Amino acid sequence: MSYTAPQKDMLFNIQHLAGIDQIAALPGFEDAGLDTAQAVLEEAAKFNEGVLSPLNWEGDKNPSSWKNGVVTATPGFKDAFKQFAEGGWQGLQHPTEYGGQGLPKTIGAACVEMCNSANLSFALCPLLSDGAIEALLTAGSDALKATYLENLVSGKWTGTMNLTEPQAGSDLAMVRSRAEPQGDGSYKVFGTKIFITWGEHDMAENIVHLVLARVTGAPEGVKGISLFVVPKFLVNADGSLGARNDVHCVSIEHKLGIKASPTAVLQYGDHGGAVGYLVGEENRGLEYMFIMMNAARYAVGMQGIAVAERAYQKAVQFAKDRVQSRPVDGSAKASVAIIHHPDVQRMLMTMRAHTQGCRAMSSVAAAAYDVAHRHTDAETRQQSQAFHEFLVPLVKGYSTEMSLDVASLGVQVHGGMGFIEETGAAQYLRDAKILAIYEGTTAIQANDLVGRKTLRDGGATAKSIARQIVVTETALAQSGSADALAVAKRLKAARTAFLDVVTFVVSSTKTQPNAVFAGSVPYLMLAGKLVAGWQLARSLLVAEELLAKGIDVAFMQAKITTARFYADHVLITAQSLRDSILEGADSVTALSVDAF
Amino acid sequence: MSYTAPQKDMLFNIQHLAGIDQIAALPGFEDAGLDTAQAVLEEAAKFNEGVLSPLNWEGDKNPSSWKNGVVTATPGFKDAFKQFAEGGWQGLQHPTEYGGQGLPKTIGAACVEMCNSANLSFALCPLLSDGAIEALLTAGSDALKATYLENLVSGKWTGTMNLTEPQAGSDLAMVRSRAEPQGDGSYKVFGTKIFITWGEHDMAENIVHLVLARVTGAPEGVKGISLFVVPKFLVNADGSLGARNDVHCVSIEHKLGIKASPTAVLQYGDHGGAVGYLVGEENRGLEYMFIMMNAARYAVGMQGIAVAERAYQKAVQFAKDRVQSRPVDGSAKASVAIIHHPDVQRMLMTMRAHTQGCRAMSSVAAAAYDVAHRHTDAETRQQSQAFHEFLVPLVKGYSTEMSLDVASLGVQVHGGMGFIEETGAAQYLRDAKILAIYEGTTAIQANDLVGRKTLRDGGATAKSIARQIVVTETALAQSGSADALAVAKRLKAARTAFLDVVTFVVSSTKTQPNAVFAGSVPYLMLAGKLVAGWQLARSLLVAEELLAKGIDVAFMQAKITTARFYADHVLITAQSLRDSILEGADSVTALSVDAF
Repeated sequence: MSYTAPQKDMLFNIQHLAGIDQIAALPGFEDAGLDTAQAVLEEAAKFNEGVLSPLNWEGDKNPSSWKNGVVTATPGFKDAFKQFAEGGWQGLQHPTEYGGQGLPKTIGAACVEMCNSANLSFALCPLLSDGAIEALLTAGSDALKATYLENLVSGKWTGTMNLTEPQAGSDLAMVRSRAEPQGDGSYKVFGTKIFITWGEHDMAENIVHLVLARVTGAPEGVKGISLFVVPKFLVNADGSLGARNDVHCVSIEHKLGIKASPTAVLQYGDHGGAVGYLVGEENRGLEYMFIMMNAARYAVGMQGIAVAERAYQKAVQFAKDRVQSRPVDGSAKASVAIIHHPDVQRMLMTMRAHTQGCRAMSSVAAAAYDVAHRHTDAETRQQSQAFHEFLVPLVKGYSTEMSLDVASLGVQVHGGMGFIEETGAAQYLRDAKILAIYEGTTAIQANDLVGRKTLRDGGATAKSIARQIVVTETALAQSGSADALAVAKRLKAARTAFLDVVTFVVSSTKTQPNAVFAGSVPYLMLAGKLVAGWQLARSLLVAEELLAKGIDVAFMQAKITTARFYADHVLITAQSLRDSILEGADSVTALSVDAF
Repeated sequence: MSYTAPQKDMLFNIQHLAGIDQIAALPGFEDAGLDTAQAVLEEAAKFNEGVLSPLNWEGDKNPSSWKNGVVTATPGFKDAFKQFAEGGWQGLQHPTEYGGQGLPKTIGAACVEMCNSANLSFALCPLLSDGAIEALLTAGSDALKATYLENLVSGKWTGTMNLTEPQAGSDLAMVRSRAEPQGDGSYKVFGTKIFITWGEHDMAENIVHLVLARVTGAPEGVKGISLFVVPKFLVNADGSLGARNDVHCVSIEHKLGIKASPTAVLQYGDHGGAVGYLVGEENRGLEYMFIMMNAARYAVGMQGIAVAERAYQKAVQFAKDRVQSRPVDGSAKASVAIIHHPDVQRMLMTMRAHTQGCRAMSSVAAAAYDVAHRHTDAETRQQSQAFHEFLVPLVKGYSTEMSLDVASLGVQVHGGMGFIEETGAAQYLRDAKILAIYEGTTAIQANDLVGRKTLRDGGATAKSIARQIVVTETALAQSGSADALAVAKRLKAARTAFLDVVTFVVSSTKTQPNAVFAGSVPYLMLAGKLVAGWQLARSLLVAEELLAKGIDVAFMQAKITTARFYADHVLITAQSLRDSILEGADSVTALSVDAF
């Protein structure tokens, strides 16, 4: 069950799709060129393959455990987290002024993928710390930044995001936790938060909870929610740890997957009130949370790609080892490794194409983030920001849904062995299932895509993406190879289907909201397939060019085949998604509630 | 987590799709009309809802356990099995001469579905007994029948099927277990069998193993495999139990799902040889096994429908209870039950339409079985047999694959709660995953569909199904309702796509085997969608007719909506499946093994 980081594929994307040279031309990223990317990825691969990957199955067998309020992480995790922190991995993308390495997301995202492939449960802890860091950088006072950031960035402390309550899941308007202002500028926080990932553990000295709550007298609904820092241990003026705060883990969940990652129920204020500090201004908590959330959602999308990659590698290994049945074309008289059977190849190609397609999509999304934050030209920044934000629900929603299919195929390739837990393939399926749920379910991503990302700008970003795809189609036509032409045909059909749906969304969300939202997830799936397929089409063009120069022949040929497969087997469904959305809304909402 | 048997939907199918009146006109089924069906289903519902369903979650928490060769079933299972036997449920479809009730499969299948919905792990035990009974009825000597059948049919004893060995999974040619003829006509059996469902347990007095093994000196490959009865306890001449036989359970597996069902490793002959009795003739074991397998595969397809139904019911209940967010159309100012949200409706409709579509398909497949076995006209028998056999890989392969999607959607509807094991939704997903693997993986079903069911008769059965679908299309056109016309459009497109693929399979399997088998599973998916969609289209026609008469208005309206949904959201993908199969084979098999 070993893991080998797909450095070559990652670097191909970073170089040819994300355009690392242009990223390195941005102010502050001067040292972040291809050489740096290569060096960082190599180090990351070493750490994740060697330290985190071997603990993955261990975490499934021996989940983090709760006793009397204390959560003990899976054996080996505490030491691994120490190594993770010492290696500087927590600070990879964070500002150098707080001890980070300030690398672009274009490079950082690949490292995040590796960490999640190696050990999804483990990787959630730094993922949540990233969110807390992001929130403080965005809206924290200088005092809060000074107190918390350095230790979060170094991995000495970890962070959490506390949104969900029993009655408030997707619907944050229903948050009831409350905060009472104290005379000294601090607040006392009361309430119950559930589903708090790594909400309690023994891997770090302190835990910095970012908590949504209502200040006494705040308006109802989402406009009355504020964001607070509530540390597990209060921090003294000299930075040392003070008293234990009044936040306690009353239980952790028994889950389908990511078992090493403790999912805590946290009780705030049962013993007089938990001391909390306001982040930014009162009643703007949700706004800050959304900034964090774009980052966290992107990261969860990377988790999907990561678990898909891991499932793929395992299935390939099994298919190469397992000998069963003679080939259907009679090319051998004896039984062969099952990887020689066409249906096994179909499954593996599906897994491979999905994973590489989403990885390519995530890579250009990361580059857009970097450009949006660093480019000197305001319009370029704005365009890149819009492009990045359009892609976030796709990276999150589409990559996680595809990871479920990929992980399920991974089990299927193993046959009966796949159903035996010790084989390890089933863990990826169990782990993957949460990805389409947390940080906003696929439906929530689709709402975001429809509302904020498509309707708000009248479809402008969506249409500009379609125009860029036309450029790729033209280049494919110019290539003229059979593969390029086949891909161009599917890409064009998918783009046309996408534009039809965008037009429908823009024209009908106000007038026929039920019809539009009946097709919101299919729209997200269509958009995800299109953008991933587009990036694989760009990859095909690059690969043809490099192949002509004799560069890395086997890799380039495989890339072309993978792009072609994606077009013929995944992108091809765009038309029926379009028809379902435009012609099928009635039957989605026709049944009366009683008839279900 | 209660379960309510969908008796109304089952009876609708039995009456209007399967045509129970015609079944009751067959010799031997005179008493098996609609009234009988109703009465049997009502009793079955009572038993399964009341006795087996409450034990389902218990079995997941407390799997059957192994200690020193003894397997103890989940607490409560032994008593439940006693009640199952006493209720006559094991013998429902078996001959009256051995104590069964001799009911048609048309009725029996609905009871099998209920049992599996109530408790998939439990239901596997009678499912395997059915297989053993079937094998003995087919090929057993009078002596074997006299010794074993009555106790198997009564549920006093249970049966198993022993095919798999560590090196022989899908590839039974590699079976190595051996049988040495003894002077007295019996054999001594040696070898290791794995993945033996309910291979050892404490629910019955004896276990009758049906075992594939090679007689000393038999030819290699599948033509040298014989079938043996190896009882756990030898049976004395007077029918009482004798000595313990030399077959022992050395371990059971730790599995992703169906945890209450012990999956045994059985060791034969470690202490001198297990006494076995030849079933039928030497070297014809695989042939007999295939007869059983059609029945077992059909039953596993029913398991898919069953677990999908259970997942659907649970998701509906949650969606009606869980209040979260305001409706997108502004029809309420407060948060509503999530079943009012279009995307939740989309998920529930998907689950519902898949389940009802596959149930309808399985019902006509059952009726064809009954006609094939009982009709007085030989040609009708032969045609019905061909139709039934064509449908078996669809019922098995398609229903089980769809059950995975349905169970996964079931978790998704629950949001974060779905990932918590105590909620129960995740169990259905874990349980469902085995269904696409055992009794022949989906790829094996697809091989069967391509080879035995399509190619062998030159596509004749496939084309005759297409002709019957044209009749339905014509009736839909005659109805002229918007729903009927919409369904007709999708049905015609799917039928045309299906025929294109059938032509490809018939013309190209010999010349381009890799291309055909690269598309074999997509062909199975296409055929499954078509036949299920066709049966829902027939249902729509019946429902329109009854609706016009004012009969059961709400049910009939829901049936029409469900059929329409299926057409617009499931059947609609037929065209892209066709294109993938006909135009996409190259990229499936192009990658060299080293490049994976």
